[in-house]
Amino acid sequence: MAARQRKVADKVAIWARRLEAADQAFTLGAADEAGSDLRCAVADADFIVFATPIGVMQSLALQIAPLISPACVVTDVGSVKYPVVTALSELFPKFVGSHPMAGSEQAGIEAARRDLFDNAACIITPQPDTDKPAMQTVYDFWKKLGCQVWTLRPEQHDEIIARISHLPHLVAAAVVNIACTDGAKPLDFVGPGFKDFSRIASGPPEMWTEICQENRHEIGRALDTLIEELGKLRAALANNDGVELKTMLKRAKHYRDELRFRV
Amino acid sequence: MAARQRKVADKVAIWARRLEAADQAFTLGAADEAGSDLRCAVADADFIVFATPIGVMQSLALQIAPLISPACVVTDVGSVKYPVVTALSELFPKFVGSHPMAGSEQAGIEAARRDLFDNAACIITPQPDTDKPAMQTVYDFWKKLGCQVWTLRPEQHDEIIARISHLPHLVAAAVVNIACTDGAKPLDFVGPGFKDFSRIASGPPEMWTEICQENRHEIGRALDTLIEELGKLRAALANNDGVELKTMLKRAKHYRDELRFRV
Repeated sequence: MAARQRKVADKVAIWARRLEAADQAFTLGAADEAGSDLRCAVADADFIVFATPIGVMQSLALQIAPLISPACVVTDVGSVKYPVVTALSELFPKFVGSHPMAGSEQAGIEAARRDLFDNAACIITPQPDTDKPAMQTVYDFWKKLGCQVWTLRPEQHDEIIARISHLPHLVAAAVVNIACTDGAKPLDFVGPGFKDFSRIASGPPEMWTEICQENRHEIGRALDTLIEELGKLRAALANNDGVELKTMLKRAKHYRDELRFRV
Repeated sequence: MAARQRKVADKVAIWARRLEAADQAFTLGAADEAGSDLRCAVADADFIVFATPIGVMQSLALQIAPLISPACVVTDVGSVKYPVVTALSELFPKFVGSHPMAGSEQAGIEAARRDLFDNAACIITPQPDTDKPAMQTVYDFWKKLGCQVWTLRPEQHDEIIARISHLPHLVAAAVVNIACTDGAKPLDFVGPGFKDFSRIASGPPEMWTEICQENRHEIGRALDTLIEELGKLRAALANNDGVELKTMLKRAKHYRDELRFRV
């Protein structure tokens, strides 16, 4: 939808596994062509965006690779970059990984918004041997969709995103499970703080399981740090240590207030 | 502001520690009278609402008790109930604790909104010996402001709110500290998920330190449960156990999707 509105391509073709999903995308004006035939969708593509779950990218890429020109620039929107970039770079000479930091807990074409990328951060993750013109093409693509584009190494991306996206996701889910499990009906009382805190826990479990597995080493490290920090907080509560609690809360407020949100 | 708009009283008087804050409240139309003289503010009150930090409630109550009629109904809006209810019930024969689940991470009169309570949940926390007409008065007050009103024992309130409000607050703060501390500038990349997840971490540290200290036993128990859950997640990541991860994420999505948000 954004690509058509911003006129970044002469023709936008959508492929979806299910024909109904493709039809729906077409009806919503997201594409000039939409269908479930992979060959038709990629035949004369100059530029391909993988916007599928991470777990199917490699098998899809294996089917696509023989069908396209080696000059075709390829990117993806996966939330984990090192394994994706490694696998897809082997199949596509002009592959550059991307991660637009946009979207919501909702899934499916119903949740599509043409202004999703307006002012969103997008990270592209070239490697030292990435084709420079391809990198420029991917950079320009996101810029034209309205993103602010940043460049990180894939490993660096995965380490940072583990802390600012994957860890919060797991933690929100764990807290929701604890909050809702037993006792009187907390569901009736939750206020706007819990609503916002827990929103990401409504995301698609299959997609997030894949993300967690693909980035398990970095998420594990982030989780170790969190468990250690929570242990300190536990001790501060046991000792009724207001100084320790306030120091930690002040630091968090300082960082949070400094965040510059785009969207 | 809501009380005046909804005409729940003939006269609304505001007391604030700082005269400038009282003047500002008056200018914003929040009161018929506003000042920093406690005696003037409470002199002929039928109904008093403590909307101060928990830590000053008792000393303020000690000053107010001799100034008012024993028929005056008194409530508060503190986020922890057992210690407040215990202390203030001794000073006011018609005290009933309240906790409106509304508000934001912002503090001060600038953040006041006359529609803050529209459809919000409000918990009132009578004890077995609480004066029944006073309880009805407090119930009616919140109803008239637009709240859905629930009744819990103070201990029950503190146990549930530890899980759905205080624990998320501490956890959001801990994750913000981990996300923002080191490495490349994560501040530049955070997306809408992190924005919402972390919003509560911008709340006033002094107020939240008091809340954590007053409810430290229940928050400590909730934190123990969370640390245990995160340990299981850590093991699932180490074992690349997709089944365990998906089960946990599905459960959280199920609970989160069931939450009925009012505001």
